[in-house]
Amino acid sequence: MPSPGRLVLLVSPKGKRYLRPLDPERTLQTNEGILKMSDVAEAGFGRIAYTHLGQPYQVIKPSLYDLVKGVKRQTQIIYPKEIGYILLKLGIGPGASVIEAGSGSGSLTLAMSFMLGETGKVYTYERRPEFFELCRKNLERAGLGRNVEHFNADIADGFLQENVDALFLDVRTPWEYLDQAAKAVAPGAPLGFLLPTVNQVSELLAGLEAGPFADTEVLEILLRRYKPMPERLRPEDRMVAHTGFLIFARQRD
Amino acid sequence: MPSPGRLVLLVSPKGKRYLRPLDPERTLQTNEGILKMSDVAEAGFGRIAYTHLGQPYQVIKPSLYDLVKGVKRQTQIIYPKEIGYILLKLGIGPGASVIEAGSGSGSLTLAMSFMLGETGKVYTYERRPEFFELCRKNLERAGLGRNVEHFNADIADGFLQENVDALFLDVRTPWEYLDQAAKAVAPGAPLGFLLPTVNQVSELLAGLEAGPFADTEVLEILLRRYKPMPERLRPEDRMVAHTGFLIFARQRD
Amino acid sequence: MPSPGRLVLLVSPKGKRYLRPLDPERTLQTNEGILKMSDVAEAGFGRIAYTHLGQPYQVIKPSLYDLVKGVKRQTQIIYPKEIGYILLKLGIGPGASVIEAGSGSGSLTLAMSFMLGETGKVYTYERRPEFFELCRKNLERAGLGRNVEHFNADIADGFLQENVDALFLDVRTPWEYLDQAAKAVAPGAPLGFLLPTVNQVSELLAGLEAGPFADTEVLEILLRRYKPMPERLRPEDRMVAHTGFLIFARQRD
Amino acid sequence: MPSPGRLVLLVSPKGKRYLRPLDPERTLQTNEGILKMSDVAEAGFGRIAYTHLGQPYQVIKPSLYDLVKGVKRQTQIIYPKEIGYILLKLGIGPGASVIEAGSGSGSLTLAMSFMLGETGKVYTYERRPEFFELCRKNLERAGLGRNVEHFNADIADGFLQENVDALFLDVRTPWEYLDQAAKAVAPGAPLGFLLPTVNQVSELLAGLEAGPFADTEVLEILLRRYKPMPERLRPEDRMVAHTGFLIFARQRD
Repeated sequence: MPSPGRLVLLVSPKGKRYLRPLDPERTLQTNEGILKMSDVAEAGFGRIAYTHLGQPYQVIKPSLYDLVKGVKRQTQIIYPKEIGYILLKLGIGPGASVIEAGSGSGSLTLAMSFMLGETGKVYTYERRPEFFELCRKNLERAGLGRNVEHFNADIADGFLQENVDALFLDVRTPWEYLDQAAKAVAPGAPLGFLLPTVNQVSELLAGLEAGPFADTEVLEILLRRYKPMPERLRPEDRMVAHTGFLIFARQRD
Repeated sequence: MPSPGRLVLLVSPKGKRYLRPLDPERTLQTNEGILKMSDVAEAGFGRIAYTHLGQPYQVIKPSLYDLVKGVKRQTQIIYPKEIGYILLKLGIGPGASVIEAGSGSGSLTLAMSFMLGETGKVYTYERRPEFFELCRKNLERAGLGRNVEHFNADIADGFLQENVDALFLDVRTPWEYLDQAAKAVAPGAPLGFLLPTVNQVSELLAGLEAGPFADTEVLEILLRRYKPMPERLRPEDRMVAHTGFLIFARQRD
Repeated sequence: MPSPGRLVLLVSPKGKRYLRPLDPERTLQTNEGILKMSDVAEAGFGRIAYTHLGQPYQVIKPSLYDLVKGVKRQTQIIYPKEIGYILLKLGIGPGASVIEAGSGSGSLTLAMSFMLGETGKVYTYERRPEFFELCRKNLERAGLGRNVEHFNADIADGFLQENVDALFLDVRTPWEYLDQAAKAVAPGAPLGFLLPTVNQVSELLAGLEAGPFADTEVLEILLRRYKPMPERLRPEDRMVAHTGFLIFARQRD
Repeated sequence: MPSPGRLVLLVSPKGKRYLRPLDPERTLQTNEGILKMSDVAEAGFGRIAYTHLGQPYQVIKPSLYDLVKGVKRQTQIIYPKEIGYILLKLGIGPGASVIEAGSGSGSLTLAMSFMLGETGKVYTYERRPEFFELCRKNLERAGLGRNVEHFNADIADGFLQENVDALFLDVRTPWEYLDQAAKAVAPGAPLGFLLPTVNQVSELLAGLEAGPFADTEVLEILLRRYKPMPERLRPEDRMVAHTGFLIFARQRD
């Protein structure tokens, strides 16, 4: 049975999705009637709960993907297609330590917190108080964040950690913080960056060339969906064409 | 200092990469001279070790990405761009349990073993003895696999586990094993599939429609690299255009 | 000066585009006031005409691209990115002869008529009366079509021409008309097809394999736009991800 | 029957392609034996000619696509996927006039010459004598070029034409020639550019913003091929990922 407070994904008969905390005192108002969260809890993951009008809702244990997509956003979030690749490139797994800036809405923070387990650590920096708060709340809401330290600080002043296993910068002018980044990571550690424009990528590449970095890569990841119809299988008409350029490098002695 | 037996990534002055176990008794023969692994161990991650001709080699702690790319392959492997996305969609993180078939060369098995930590579990099935062995060796070589159970079995006979958190099928005719899959996973659990041709995708979709599954998705992930030159930034001339279609669904009551 | 009756492209101060026939008796009602077509004619291509409120409108000679995009549509049209490639593959240029079915809204017919010049010929077939009429009107409106013969006929009965230089089928089940197509073209002539789903492509490929055809190719063309900002250059957020698969083959003896 | 001197496409039993002038005095040496061009002429387009070892070769009338792909190249050529789109955007068809620089190997020149017919005109500029010669030869070899004027000149000195219908610049620093371009075209005429790097695109966009131009667009065209197997249809493993960015604008009063 889902534990109270944890997020649960509720899917309507028409496929509409609600990511909600499992608070047995509450109800969900839907177009198909009122759904009692106590009924959801009783049904359990993978089962059906019914509204007061008898309409069936699927009760789903949200995957990391669902949690990331359900982040309340006030900023551009980082998408699952990029997050998965970032985790592999930075070696984010149980026990690792990683610095991230800025926190933004916390979609990457959430994924890192999920993957690092009890023995890993995320140090996330955010200058703007409203995003600092938003990131904390998004993690708490997802039942994650015990392995996260939040800093409401300007990274121009440097990072408080040393020797972390990896570092990710999702800020507008990452080339201004390369010295700070190089000092914070372990020798040879991987660094990642996300930037929307090619002009920023050029400027970052120049900065990386001038500093103690190696193995620089630039790439983008495109995701193309298909209409899942066995007899009329075809790509969807439109797709997201750009979320950002990913840049990776390693600290070098 | 890297612990003996663990893989270490050695990068030549020209950027050539060697993923090798750190066995202090051994040496690496390179075009730039002989590199003693004892010197590599002494240098440590992020530092430089020198060949007997004085040529510098970077000593790198391999990320999960490096480990996946370093898998010895006798089959088509699953690539990092797909692996990252699969992990998120299936909710593979510390403590989760997952079934995978077939093991193949073990690139996804390796990534799952990495992410699931000490408390998670991979049950990986492979019918062909040579791949069964190869997958085991690739995991052992990477210093992973303690949370993996290998089965040299035909999944037509069903899976030995029940109630696992997720399941991934990378086999030629996954539609033949949907009953077995549905029985092995927890209610509402996510399933993933990887297939090379559109004909197979159509056949799988028909199978999923006929069975206890919901939320079916089909997609592909494309990765486009850029030449990392600040003054002449441009996409690379050629790219990998197809590694496979990813299909996801959920078990439904 | 633009000749009366020809289409003219009028671009508002905000970039809104109107493709209209140059009828000096008429006016264009805009948000920025009334624009007299007599003033447009007097201004001439490349110049500015003013509304009665003094707002400037650019008077543009439409390119073939503009004409294709301006086709009044009741069907899915064929897009410029595909049209250009089709023209090259089929060798559509001054003096060539080509059969097309179905006419649809006439976007490809229009482009062929434009390229074939006075000595070339398009034979376009359309079964449905409403599209037969629509195609004629779209060509007439663009000042084209003198080299086009329209047939309101079912191609199951075969084509009335022989020995044409090329043939293009944009119909739902092209594999049913391959015999008719093979008889209508010159020996070795190129054929083209446009289909939305992979299932149709498979069926067509099977048909082509079974008939007198060679050099079969399947491809798709993707167009990705960028925001044209020199200091913040980046791909647009979304793009058209699928308009159709193009298939080409040659008749073989 | 193909006329002497015209290019003919010969396809071997294994699909190997030869684009050769139809000179009845000559022979083609192949792995399957000697093919007499006199036999090719006698067979005719769409038919089979046999080598002295009795091996069948298809005799194909080359399409514009085949001619473009057959251009002898000493430079990066412009590819059919871009050429088709350029033709539409610039309105290149029977009777139009267009300036192009540089000529390069002449693949775009060839396509323009093909499409413009007897009443159209290409003015092509090339500074380097070796490409100036190469372009002429490639056109002559294809049986085209009667509507082309070649200039072995530096476009920094301006263009000799005025009021042309369109202009295309495929040079390294097009932003240096925008004044010359604006003077050469008719009011409101379309201009096109092809550039490999994003830095060049940025610089060109800045130049276009500063000059008498409007309706600027930046885009790229990707072509993805499929293995044409009805039962195992799938994208090819690798693809061309970048040939260049296309930029279009209009002269503005």
